[in-house]
This record gives sequence, C-alpha cells and structure tokens, in this order.
Amino acid sequence: MHRTKVRVATDVLDANDTIARANRADFARAGVRVVNLMSAPGAGKTELLERVLARGLGELRVGVLEGDVRGSLDAERLSALDVPVAQLNTDPGFGGECHLDANMVRSTLGVLALDQIDVLVIENVGNLVCPAEFRVGEDARAMISSVTEGEDKPVKYPLMFRACELVVVNKIDLLPHLDFSLERFLANLDRVHPGVERMLLSARTGEGVDAFAGWLAAVGQREAEPA
Amino acid sequence: MHRTKVRVATDVLDANDTIARANRADFARAGVRVVNLMSAPGAGKTELLERVLARGLGELRVGVLEGDVRGSLDAERLSALDVPVAQLNTDPGFGGECHLDANMVRSTLGVLALDQIDVLVIENVGNLVCPAEFRVGEDARAMISSVTEGEDKPVKYPLMFRACELVVVNKIDLLPHLDFSLERFLANLDRVHPGVERMLLSARTGEGVDAFAGWLAAVGQREAEPA
Repeated sequence: MHRTKVRVATDVLDANDTIARANRADFARAGVRVVNLMSAPGAGKTELLERVLARGLGELRVGVLEGDVRGSLDAERLSALDVPVAQLNTDPGFGGECHLDANMVRSTLGVLALDQIDVLVIENVGNLVCPAEFRVGEDARAMISSVTEGEDKPVKYPLMFRACELVVVNKIDLLPHLDFSLERFLANLDRVHPGVERMLLSARTGEGVDAFAGWLAAVGQREAEPA
Repeated sequence: MHRTKVRVATDVLDANDTIARANRADFARAGVRVVNLMSAPGAGKTELLERVLARGLGELRVGVLEGDVRGSLDAERLSALDVPVAQLNTDPGFGGECHLDANMVRSTLGVLALDQIDVLVIENVGNLVCPAEFRVGEDARAMISSVTEGEDKPVKYPLMFRACELVVVNKIDLLPHLDFSLERFLANLDRVHPGVERMLLSARTGEGVDAFAGWLAAVGQREAEPA
C-alpha cells in the first residue's frame, strides 16, 4: 500500500513538472521572468508586493498572479497600484487546494498580459508545506518567514526553506516586542539550507524593501535558462 | 476530467470519515474526549498548550498528540511538563503531508496512554487549508488565529473558520504594535461563521488562558455522543 501511494505521488509530481516546463518555456518566449513567492498565511507577501509595486523596479515592468483559496482581496489591493494583476482561485478543488500547481498557472496564460510584463510574481497560497513541492514554471523561488512565527520554522518545514533561493525575514519592526532570537532562527535556517541568501526587512516600515526589489530586478535581468 | 477529480476526492474524504468514526468510538470507549487544534504555522498552538499543561485542568488529565511534518521539537517542549505526549510525523507522505488524517491518528492508538488521559489535544500540522477537511476522530475542533496574520484570514480561509466551534485570537499583547483592527477581524469572522465562540488571549502573557482551559475542561466533561 505504502509503496503504491508514493508511486502515485511521484507520478503526480512528474506530470506537474512537465507542465511547469511548458509554462516556463512560454514565459521565456514572452521575455518574462517568473518568481514563485511563498509563505505561511499572513507572513506579509501582499504587503511586501504593495511596497515593491509602489516604488517600481526601474525600467522593468512587474505583474502579479494572485493565488488564493477563495476571494480576490489581495488582487484588489494590488490592482489599485495600476499594474497587471490576475487572480487564480484554487477553490474548485475539493474544499480548496492548498497550493498552486503548474496546470492552474497554465490556465491563466490566456488572461495574463505577458506583453506588458518583464517580471511576474506569482503569490502562492499561504502554506509552508505543499507549495514547495509543485513547480509552476518559475525562474526563482523565494519565501517569506515572519519573525512572529517563531525560531523553529526552518526545522519544522525544511522542504520549503530548502526549495527557495531567497529567504525574506519579515516584520523585524516587531522584534523588540517578541521572544524571538534572530540568531537562533538563522542558525536553524543554516541547518536546513546552509548559506542560503537571506534578507531582513519590514514591509510595514519599508526597511529592507529596496534590497528585495533589487533581488527581483536581478531575476528580471537573468538570461532565460533552458527549462 | 474535473468531475473525476472531485469524485476521487469525495471518496477519499468518505474513507477518512469512516476511520475517524472508528477512532472516535475507540476514544469514547476509553473515556477520552478529543480536541483537534488547528492553526497556521507559528500561531501559538504549542505555547498555549504549554500554558494549559502547566496550570492543569483540575481533576482532568490532559494528553497531547503532536502532529508535525518532521521532527519532535514540540513534543519535547511539552514532555518537560510531565504529561503523556506522543509524536506523529507526516513525513512518510510525499514531501510530507500538510495535515493529519484519521488513519495517521489511528496508527497512534497503540502508543497513546489512553488510560492516563481524560482530554486528548491533537495538535494538527500548521496549515489553514487541508486540516479542516479531514476529521480525525475528535469531539470538538478549535483553531487559533494570531493577530499578526491580519484581519482578512477568515475571508481567505473560510472553510477552516467554519469547521471550528471555537476561534482563539492569540497574541493580543502585540495589538499596540500592529496595524490590526480587532473589530474588522471579528466582522470578517462573523461573515463566514456568524456568532462562533471566540476568545481573545495571549499565550505569552497568560491573559485569557484560563478561559481556554475552561473550554477544554468543558469538552472533557461532555457526554460521549454517537460518532
């Protein structure tokens, strides 16, 4: 039984990867670089994107694909900033899927204004488990970990912290009010993903947002790699 | 294709419910009432349980089943408090399952010291989506929403907020440092689950912990209902 289950899961991920490669090829053809942005619920993905969109990325044009179980609250927040925003709801799955997959993203290719976008940020469903397992056609993966979530998160959700090339540590303005040791958090991070790039920031105060914008712009200027 | 997918999902949930009923009957036979405790990662489930275990529930004996993707950090924290604690890891699933299901809980019945427990708290995997879909044999479901996660969570994860009979609003000690309107959060909560019981507390300062302990004790004194 157990072997069968793992085999089925492997097949599902293989099929997903095939579609993800097709997405990536389509994005590359359109000259669009894609970032898959992940975090737990409420870690600050949308607030950080609001900050980035308000300041812009210089000559690079940003677009956003909002993934949510239900509703379009985040897309509405961002569309006020006058950039291309599309909403993707996972609700048609049973009770709502807890992650985006390549096929869901593929279904949006017709509505995304790719000719008006250089860097597409895909805001995944808030979840530290399954989104890490499903590529969607991205060039880079980044995650946000809020200091309010505690020091132990890298050790408890290692796949997510390993899957990303950038770990953003958000809400550092709250550090004086928390029992949170940044040193212990970073030691835990280095246990599961030694040396991974990390940025400390506060989307609320704006501290560190420029560094994240710089990282996004650098992804936007990457050469397209073979998928 | 889509219809097939939903059909398979329905079958999975039906099978899960059957096993959940068997778990509940076994718990009832042992005189144990069970609470399924859910939240996003880092909302404070373990810290709240530490507080409750330290003060106790009067004559009622508490036990904990810790669900995590990987590791036993939380079980180790709690076992220092000298109550029966068992660890359940979901890691054997592909990449780690993002929720507990009835069969996983069933696999622990042999190691849980049910004869030393009156109220068993099952701490689910940190996730606001899938745990709400899988009953595990519990008498009651409760969730924790941290004020650091934002006002919009009930609207974005409605199934979770509807599935629970108690919503604990944690980390209220941080309210002076956040842009968070408790009024708007509670209005969103009442939109998706009108009138649901709610408690404001801070596991960190201890404020409100007695009320939660009282709720747990009341669950422990419920008559066993037919599963």
